[in-house]
Amino acid sequence: MSIDQLISAIKSKKSPIVVGLDPRLEQIPAEIVEKYEQEGFRPYDVVKNSLIEFNKGIIDAVKDIVPALKPQVAFYEQYGLAGMEAYAETCRYGKEAGLYIIADVKRGDIGSTSKAYSLGHLGKVNFGEEQLNSFEADSVTVNPYLGDDCLSEFVDEIKEYDKGMFVLVKTSNKSSDQLQNLEVGGQKIYEVVGGLVNNWSQQTIGSNGYSPVGAVVGATYPSEMDTLRKVMPNSYFLVPGYGAQGGGGQDVVNAFNEDGLGAVVNSSRGIIFAYKKSGLPYKEAARQAALAMQEDINSALEQAGKKYW
Amino acid sequence: MSIDQLISAIKSKKSPIVVGLDPRLEQIPAEIVEKYEQEGFRPYDVVKNSLIEFNKGIIDAVKDIVPALKPQVAFYEQYGLAGMEAYAETCRYGKEAGLYIIADVKRGDIGSTSKAYSLGHLGKVNFGEEQLNSFEADSVTVNPYLGDDCLSEFVDEIKEYDKGMFVLVKTSNKSSDQLQNLEVGGQKIYEVVGGLVNNWSQQTIGSNGYSPVGAVVGATYPSEMDTLRKVMPNSYFLVPGYGAQGGGGQDVVNAFNEDGLGAVVNSSRGIIFAYKKSGLPYKEAARQAALAMQEDINSALEQAGKKYW
Repeated sequence: MSIDQLISAIKSKKSPIVVGLDPRLEQIPAEIVEKYEQEGFRPYDVVKNSLIEFNKGIIDAVKDIVPALKPQVAFYEQYGLAGMEAYAETCRYGKEAGLYIIADVKRGDIGSTSKAYSLGHLGKVNFGEEQLNSFEADSVTVNPYLGDDCLSEFVDEIKEYDKGMFVLVKTSNKSSDQLQNLEVGGQKIYEVVGGLVNNWSQQTIGSNGYSPVGAVVGATYPSEMDTLRKVMPNSYFLVPGYGAQGGGGQDVVNAFNEDGLGAVVNSSRGIIFAYKKSGLPYKEAARQAALAMQEDINSALEQAGKKYW
Repeated sequence: MSIDQLISAIKSKKSPIVVGLDPRLEQIPAEIVEKYEQEGFRPYDVVKNSLIEFNKGIIDAVKDIVPALKPQVAFYEQYGLAGMEAYAETCRYGKEAGLYIIADVKRGDIGSTSKAYSLGHLGKVNFGEEQLNSFEADSVTVNPYLGDDCLSEFVDEIKEYDKGMFVLVKTSNKSSDQLQNLEVGGQKIYEVVGGLVNNWSQQTIGSNGYSPVGAVVGATYPSEMDTLRKVMPNSYFLVPGYGAQGGGGQDVVNAFNEDGLGAVVNSSRGIIFAYKKSGLPYKEAARQAALAMQEDINSALEQAGKKYW
C-alpha cells in the first residue's frame, strides 16, 4: 500500500488515526488467556493464540473507522517465536482488512545489514527458489543514528515496492532531549536529522505532494513539531505520544500542514486497553476510544482551519 | 554469562575475538542448501535447516579458540519466522558450547518498549504461568538515539541476570560521521554518547574492573577510538569493522586498555565465508581465519606492550 493510498483512506474514513497494537498478556482481557489455558494448550500456543485473538478483535472493531495499524514489534519479540508468529499473523490480518501497516521496528544498521531488514519487512527475500514476503508491512520506523548509509537501503525497497518509512526525528519520551536537542552550529540535532529526511523526501514525492519517506515526531513536544513541520514540508509525520503519553488534539495540530494532511496520530494503550477504564467489552471500548480520538483531532483541525475532508 | 566470565574465557583462550554469525543463503556452501532441497523439505525448512546447519558447523569449528559469538539478527529476521527459529537455535547451541552470545539487535525505544526488548533478549518473560527465556543472549547491542530512558531499561536486566550491553557510540560505516561526528559545545556527539555510557558503566563495575555496560566502537575510526577509550575507561568495547570492512590488527590496538583487556574484536564475513577465498571446506577455513585473526591481534597487542595472557 502506498502513501497515496494511505492518504485516500484518511480522507474517506475522515480519520488520520493509527491504532498501536502493543499487546501485553497481563493487560489483555483475562478470559482470552484463560480460555486457551483451560483448553490445555501449551504455553507457546496460549501466548500466540491469545495475542492473535486479541489483535483480531481490535482490528475488526476499528477497521472501518481508522486507516492504519502500528504493531510495536517489541511486544511480540519479547515472547520469542510465539510472539513473532502472532506478529506475522497480525500484519497479515490487518493487511487483508485493507489497513496500512506500520511496522514499529525502529531498525537501523550498517548498509548491508539494513538491506536485510528492508527486504524482510518491506521487500521480498529469496527463499529457496521462490521470492517471498517475510513480514508484510507497508512502512517501517527507522533509527537514524548510523546516517544515510542506513536510510538509503530502505529507500530502495520503498521505491521498488511502493512502501514507506518513518525516520525517528524527535521521539516522545522524556530523555529524547539528551541527544536530539543538542545544538550544533545553530541547529538542533533533530533539525539535522529532519534535514536528512527531507533530502530523501524531496526525491520521492508522490502525486498528492507527499513522500513515503516520513518522520516520527512526538506529540509531547509541540514546539519542536512546529519547527520540524517546516523542515520537512513533504514528509508524512507519524505522531506518537497522544493519549496515554499525555498529548491531546490541540498538541498534534501543528503536525499537520495547512491542507489538513501530512500527519497520522498514533494511540496504543488509550485505544486497545480502553476497556479497563470504560467497563465495556474490549472491542466496543476500543471502537469508542477511536471514535472519541477522531472527534478530538478533527475538531482541533477544523478550529485551526485545517479541514481535510 | 557475566562480563567477568567473558574476560576469563578471553584469557584462557588467548583470544579477544568475536565470530559474527551473519549467514546469507546465497553465500553459505551450496551443498548445504541443495541437500535440504533435494530431500524435499518445504522452503521454510530448507531455509531454517540450512542456516542452523551452517552455524553449528562454524560454532563447532571455532568454539575452543574464540570466547564469543555475535549473531546479527537482521540476517535471520529477513527470513521471517524460519529465520527467527534459526536465530533462537543458534543462540541456544552457542550458549551450550560455553560461548558468550552477543545479540546484535541494535534495539532501542521509549522506556516501556525497551523493557520488552530487554526482557525478551536478556531477561525472562511471563509465559502463561511460567517464566521463560525467549531468546538466550548474554549481551545486546543498543541504539542510544532515545537517551537514558531507553538505556536504563536494559541496565535493569543486566543487573538482575548478570548480562551486558554494548551501546552504539561510533559505528564502523562510512556515513556514521553524519550525526556521530557533529560537534556540540566542543564535544563530538560520539563523546556525548560515550559519556552517557560511562555514567552507567561507573555504576556497574565488576570484580575485574570492567562493567557489563560497554560500547560499539568501529575499527575503521582509530582516532575516535583513541579518544573514546579515555572517555569510557571501564567499559568493554565491541569493535566491528575488522577484516571485510577494512580494519587490521594495528587498527584495533587502541581499543584495548594498557592491561590488554577492554575490547573484543568482531569478524563476520572474514571468518564465516573464508572458504570462498581459501578453497578449504568451510569449517576448516573458518577455523584457520579465526586463528590468523588471533595471531594478528595478539601480535599487535604484544608489540604495543598490551599482553593480557
